[in-house]
Amino acid sequence: MAAVTLQRHLLLCNATLVLLLHLCSGLSLDTVRDFLTREEDAIVFSLIERARYPANAPAYGPAAAGDLGRLHGASFAEMFVRESEAVQAKAGRYQSLQEIPFFPFRVPFTLAPPYNFTAELHAAAASVNVNGAIWSTYFSQLLPLLAKNGDDGNYAATVASDLVCLQALSRRINYGRYVAEVKFIGDQQNYTTLIRKKDKDALMKLLTSEAQEDVVKRRVQKKAMVFGQNVTLDGPVETGNSNSSQTSFKVDPSLVYKLYDKWVIPLTKQVEVEYLLHRLD
Amino acid sequence: MAAVTLQRHLLLCNATLVLLLHLCSGLSLDTVRDFLTREEDAIVFSLIERARYPANAPAYGPAAAGDLGRLHGASFAEMFVRESEAVQAKAGRYQSLQEIPFFPFRVPFTLAPPYNFTAELHAAAASVNVNGAIWSTYFSQLLPLLAKNGDDGNYAATVASDLVCLQALSRRINYGRYVAEVKFIGDQQNYTTLIRKKDKDALMKLLTSEAQEDVVKRRVQKKAMVFGQNVTLDGPVETGNSNSSQTSFKVDPSLVYKLYDKWVIPLTKQVEVEYLLHRLD
Repeated sequence: MAAVTLQRHLLLCNATLVLLLHLCSGLSLDTVRDFLTREEDAIVFSLIERARYPANAPAYGPAAAGDLGRLHGASFAEMFVRESEAVQAKAGRYQSLQEIPFFPFRVPFTLAPPYNFTAELHAAAASVNVNGAIWSTYFSQLLPLLAKNGDDGNYAATVASDLVCLQALSRRINYGRYVAEVKFIGDQQNYTTLIRKKDKDALMKLLTSEAQEDVVKRRVQKKAMVFGQNVTLDGPVETGNSNSSQTSFKVDPSLVYKLYDKWVIPLTKQVEVEYLLHRLD
Repeated sequence: MAAVTLQRHLLLCNATLVLLLHLCSGLSLDTVRDFLTREEDAIVFSLIERARYPANAPAYGPAAAGDLGRLHGASFAEMFVRESEAVQAKAGRYQSLQEIPFFPFRVPFTLAPPYNFTAELHAAAASVNVNGAIWSTYFSQLLPLLAKNGDDGNYAATVASDLVCLQALSRRINYGRYVAEVKFIGDQQNYTTLIRKKDKDALMKLLTSEAQEDVVKRRVQKKAMVFGQNVTLDGPVETGNSNSSQTSFKVDPSLVYKLYDKWVIPLTKQVEVEYLLHRLD
């Protein structure tokens, strides 16, 4: 019994310390929600910008031969993302844990001015991510629904806009680590029990709020209507309310709803569960 | 007299040929206006995304030492843009004349699938651009008004969003070449006379439509209101009409008006005049 009491006492001390750390770093359910809500705008903007270009199929075929023998079979898009991420890694983008590359590099940060980022995540779980799933979902499922048929030759500009979409989706979905951290701190005892049992289903149930998910899905659909309309000086403005959907939009609002319903929210929750499973390591 | 008649006849033949070429390539006052209008959305989105980050002053100071001796004195932002543009050049971005790099490179297009772009511009004038002015205006005048004070350490993400702004502004402003080409074709005799005289002032006057400029400035301000609002599921939606400006916006709409009034429109017209001066070379 004494051992159990001591263990509980230590757990409580630990929880208080973590809570203090979070108060200092500013991580709370409010800041986490604000981040996710703001990221919705970035995602909708990036999809609208990608939809300017047609499918541009050659950009997703094999890259032209050249000095790339090492990566035989990589697509043009993959080569572009790899080379762009190498520049961004060199510039220190991934020093912030909020950003995770699709193709990790080990490069010295020769270009980046120094900065001390606050450690808001549990170190052993901080690198959890689903970038592999985001990558394949984006190219095989989302893009065919997003881009119109056609080929205008703007392959580099097209895949540059793919990269902006991928980065926004990755930042949003892998932010599930921060969401999980805040939820863990808010209900440490229940989460600890389930993590010890490695009970994925019960963890998923505990962190799910269907009412909140419904709000998010309907809000991103509305954002697609508001941000994706053709704004004219004198014409009416689409407000995204149910009785005003005669307008044509740059990206189908129901596709953005679907993106969140089928992919963004489930993948975020997958990140949350994976993070929690390593939260006590 | 016979010589003058012959010259006029040749001019007319030439005009007809050029007109046919343009009808084939799809360049018209309508397509040009559509492009510029669509580019407004891209510019407003990019400004909103840049405004997520604070000023992040260290990103604009000298780059850290390293393997960069050759470019002693270049800022971190400049190094980032140079390296990113090198990747994009390698990927063939600048094969399209619509895209002009800030730091031109001569690289083989090892990665780019081949594509035959239509030649819509007069070759001798096609490379006219004001990227130098766009670069200095962006960093010294626009950015201090756009970004809030502060330093969050996200230097690479910040300058990546600067690059998106710069590319959108460059594409829009240097599109003045296409605008000038269409105007030239539509009024070839008057433009030819003024180009031969190298009469910049008269050319500027001929291509200026203040009424149209006023529409553009008020429309981009409205777009900043519509795209830069916080969209909530149940709250009212800002329509950008005069009597509804209690909302707070992610980018000050009057700054976007000013951007177009002071910089975008004047620089575009500068490109138009420069292009026309080389239109008969």
